[in-house]
Amino acid sequence: MSETLTAHHPLDQAVHLEAAGPGLYRGATTPEYWNMAGPFGGATAAVLLKAVLDHPERRGRPVAQTVNFCGAVAEGPFDVQVRLVRDGRSTQHWQVELSQEGKIATTCSAVTGAERETWSHAPGAPPKVPRAEDVAAMDTTGRNAWLGRYEFRYVRGEPVRGGGGVEAPASAVSHTWIRDQPARPLDYVALAALSDTFVVKILQVRGDVPPVATVSLSTYFLADEAALTRQGVRPVLGVSDVRVFRHGFNDQSAELWSDDGELLAVSNQVVWFKA
Amino acid sequence: MSETLTAHHPLDQAVHLEAAGPGLYRGATTPEYWNMAGPFGGATAAVLLKAVLDHPERRGRPVAQTVNFCGAVAEGPFDVQVRLVRDGRSTQHWQVELSQEGKIATTCSAVTGAERETWSHAPGAPPKVPRAEDVAAMDTTGRNAWLGRYEFRYVRGEPVRGGGGVEAPASAVSHTWIRDQPARPLDYVALAALSDTFVVKILQVRGDVPPVATVSLSTYFLADEAALTRQGVRPVLGVSDVRVFRHGFNDQSAELWSDDGELLAVSNQVVWFKA
Repeated sequence: MSETLTAHHPLDQAVHLEAAGPGLYRGATTPEYWNMAGPFGGATAAVLLKAVLDHPERRGRPVAQTVNFCGAVAEGPFDVQVRLVRDGRSTQHWQVELSQEGKIATTCSAVTGAERETWSHAPGAPPKVPRAEDVAAMDTTGRNAWLGRYEFRYVRGEPVRGGGGVEAPASAVSHTWIRDQPARPLDYVALAALSDTFVVKILQVRGDVPPVATVSLSTYFLADEAALTRQGVRPVLGVSDVRVFRHGFNDQSAELWSDDGELLAVSNQVVWFKA
Repeated sequence: MSETLTAHHPLDQAVHLEAAGPGLYRGATTPEYWNMAGPFGGATAAVLLKAVLDHPERRGRPVAQTVNFCGAVAEGPFDVQVRLVRDGRSTQHWQVELSQEGKIATTCSAVTGAERETWSHAPGAPPKVPRAEDVAAMDTTGRNAWLGRYEFRYVRGEPVRGGGGVEAPASAVSHTWIRDQPARPLDYVALAALSDTFVVKILQVRGDVPPVATVSLSTYFLADEAALTRQGVRPVLGVSDVRVFRHGFNDQSAELWSDDGELLAVSNQVVWFKA
């Protein structure tokens, strides 16, 4: 049975690519991850990482990924061109472009690296939060499709319309248990998508949503494959914050923790907003 | 008098580019910013940003920059190729490659955006620290050349050989007043370089320096040109931390604050280390 027939999860469908030439892959947007005016950025990040992982010359696992959202991705098919820029002993550097009808919509750089055991030290720690099963799941009924592809259990900072306020903005910190919906064993592709699941911070602090768009997203994958396998289908803990909204842009930092306290990934993005 | 003759600061010499064709620029490494086995990564980030700023189609100011250090940059001349990937109403997306003898050593993506005044909110705050003039400057005598191009005034986390320890590693947090040496008015190019001035974190926590190399660096520029002009030649406050060293890589987060408490830039990198 082909991979196509067994990969029934909506994420696997969204990142499904057909080889179309040397380093060239064809995919298509799926309604399951639709956002307001295009696919959920995390699904785009995931498909670009998948293209690197599918490349026959790829060795090792993802270490870093930067996605630049240059323009809207339209509903329908897209091409993904993958180029191995530099093949080093310890890392490979990749450049990826997603285009539609010859126009580049998204660019991506990625670094893969050999799995190694080294000295380790973890000064960072996750916040103390209740267990996922003790936190209510957010109702995503009637909202943009991609929100229904995740189970969000907000411990702190659930974005609510009418919450926060322009005059007295709320904190931008959020602590959220999150997993794919339906459940799916964790891998790097899912982690790339999870890195962009921190719902519009301006909604969290102001209680309304002006036009917003992620401009650039960088994720560092700090866990090995074994740690992702151990995590399996259980929710990961997302910790996110913003330092400043100013001049029409805001930063956003995020950490994704396993439920036994290992840092799986850190992710940062800069977001454009209007008004 | 030409810009070449007036630009005497070592940073301006390091980022000096000659136009050599459409989007093509020629530069050269300078001994003043030499690191262990190549130029200081911040100088490379600065020259790649300078190439974007020099491009005749560039509008607006830098918003985001990601630099991927694919391979060593050798002493001597290099080519910088700048490509405008997507020219949008509110942002421009750029792709940049630094090569030597036809081999790509560094890739870079950058986003520029029009200056805008919008609603603003700054939940982040700098740590409370003594004023720069009340903190002793680090002695950089006899160390890699680039360290002498900055004045470091460590409030916390000065990296010291024999400090920290493999058995009981120190915290990775650092608070540092920092400025160009000799002093130079702050601009985006200088800020891009400053984003990489957080001296090897593994030295800070372990007290020794195994082979290390920044793999990928992403900086978001959150201040407008007026804020940089206000800051002038006074030291900025650098706040930096690491969450985890594991599997031969560590993350590193950094914030650069003006001395009146405005966040000028945030920067993140992933660092490869041996052992």
